[in-house]
Amino acid sequence: MTCASRVVEVRTQGRGLYDVTDEVRRAARETGLRTGVVHVFVRHTSASLVVQENADPAVLRDLSRWMEKLAPESRAYEHDDEGPDDMPGHLRSSVTRTSETIPVAEGKLQLGTWQAIYLWEHRNAPHRRELVLTVMGE
Amino acid sequence: MTCASRVVEVRTQGRGLYDVTDEVRRAARETGLRTGVVHVFVRHTSASLVVQENADPAVLRDLSRWMEKLAPESRAYEHDDEGPDDMPGHLRSSVTRTSETIPVAEGKLQLGTWQAIYLWEHRNAPHRRELVLTVMGE
Amino acid sequence: MTCASRVVEVRTQGRGLYDVTDEVRRAARETGLRTGVVHVFVRHTSASLVVQENADPAVLRDLSRWMEKLAPESRAYEHDDEGPDDMPGHLRSSVTRTSETIPVAEGKLQLGTWQAIYLWEHRNAPHRRELVLTVMGE
Repeated sequence: MTCASRVVEVRTQGRGLYDVTDEVRRAARETGLRTGVVHVFVRHTSASLVVQENADPAVLRDLSRWMEKLAPESRAYEHDDEGPDDMPGHLRSSVTRTSETIPVAEGKLQLGTWQAIYLWEHRNAPHRRELVLTVMGE
Repeated sequence: MTCASRVVEVRTQGRGLYDVTDEVRRAARETGLRTGVVHVFVRHTSASLVVQENADPAVLRDLSRWMEKLAPESRAYEHDDEGPDDMPGHLRSSVTRTSETIPVAEGKLQLGTWQAIYLWEHRNAPHRRELVLTVMGE
Repeated sequence: MTCASRVVEVRTQGRGLYDVTDEVRRAARETGLRTGVVHVFVRHTSASLVVQENADPAVLRDLSRWMEKLAPESRAYEHDDEGPDDMPGHLRSSVTRTSETIPVAEGKLQLGTWQAIYLWEHRNAPHRRELVLTVMGE
């Protein structure tokens, strides 16, 4: 059985979606996993994960605009010590994912043709974000 | 250790929720899994997964109506090459799930009495959707 | 390989977020897991899971208020046999999580400093909720 854990650091440039598919693919490959999963976990609550379309960058722009209306920046939140972009980050992470699990078969990530894994930075300022990758299978 | 991967195709008849619990149960049973999980992954970004109530079909109708307001069809999206139902599909998939993991114990899916696993087709037209099922445990 | 399943019961006092991190940590510790994951699954569709900030309780209050607007109590739902708080529970669970998977390395949950795992009770009345915990790894 393969069972391995590693931490990957991603430096974001502020709010936006960052493709981390290569980091996940590398973890699967370096452990020699043939069949199983890679679990990706973000160790923060104002950044999150989604699997989304990797072909047209307009998808990510529409997605960001929609989320900015759904959970807007505001001075009306009770939790606002870190600024008006802090609480919306928690809200946006609550309706997207803290972790994603990606299947592996025949040694390859089984993503669909148009899928990539994105780290979604919800804070306006650049941050260092930690992902815990767990590779499990055989 | 049991570690098996298979692809299941689901033909949808357009927008709506399709119960895929039997496909997941069959994968668990055919591998002889006693304790572990079945991971279900949808290889698309305009279809997604949810675990929801299987008793009253009105739940699925209310859920669909609510989601259609939350992420409405519109000509205002930047990404609209495939029609006004394309981008809402991405939005709806971003706040539901690309994968669900179902526990297995004593050889049985540990769903609650009222739970079923649904593939949520977000596009208006019928589609062929692929699910990757990964069975892991012993 | 470690592969163990247990059921944990949580008694809620009605709508709100309940920290279940200790229950998850205990399951990992009692199985002696060194590297792997703990999968937490809620056997209900009007309660759900999120990983959120554990430092400032105002985060949970803002989150609850926001969700109450996003999926409001109403008499306008078709599914209303159990009262106006029933269908919003399903809606809120559909956009949060039925399961969360927490990585373990060196025998410890790899949560970030400010993260806790919450069971989110969406019904107004107290309920007994079942979580299925599956510990997998080595």
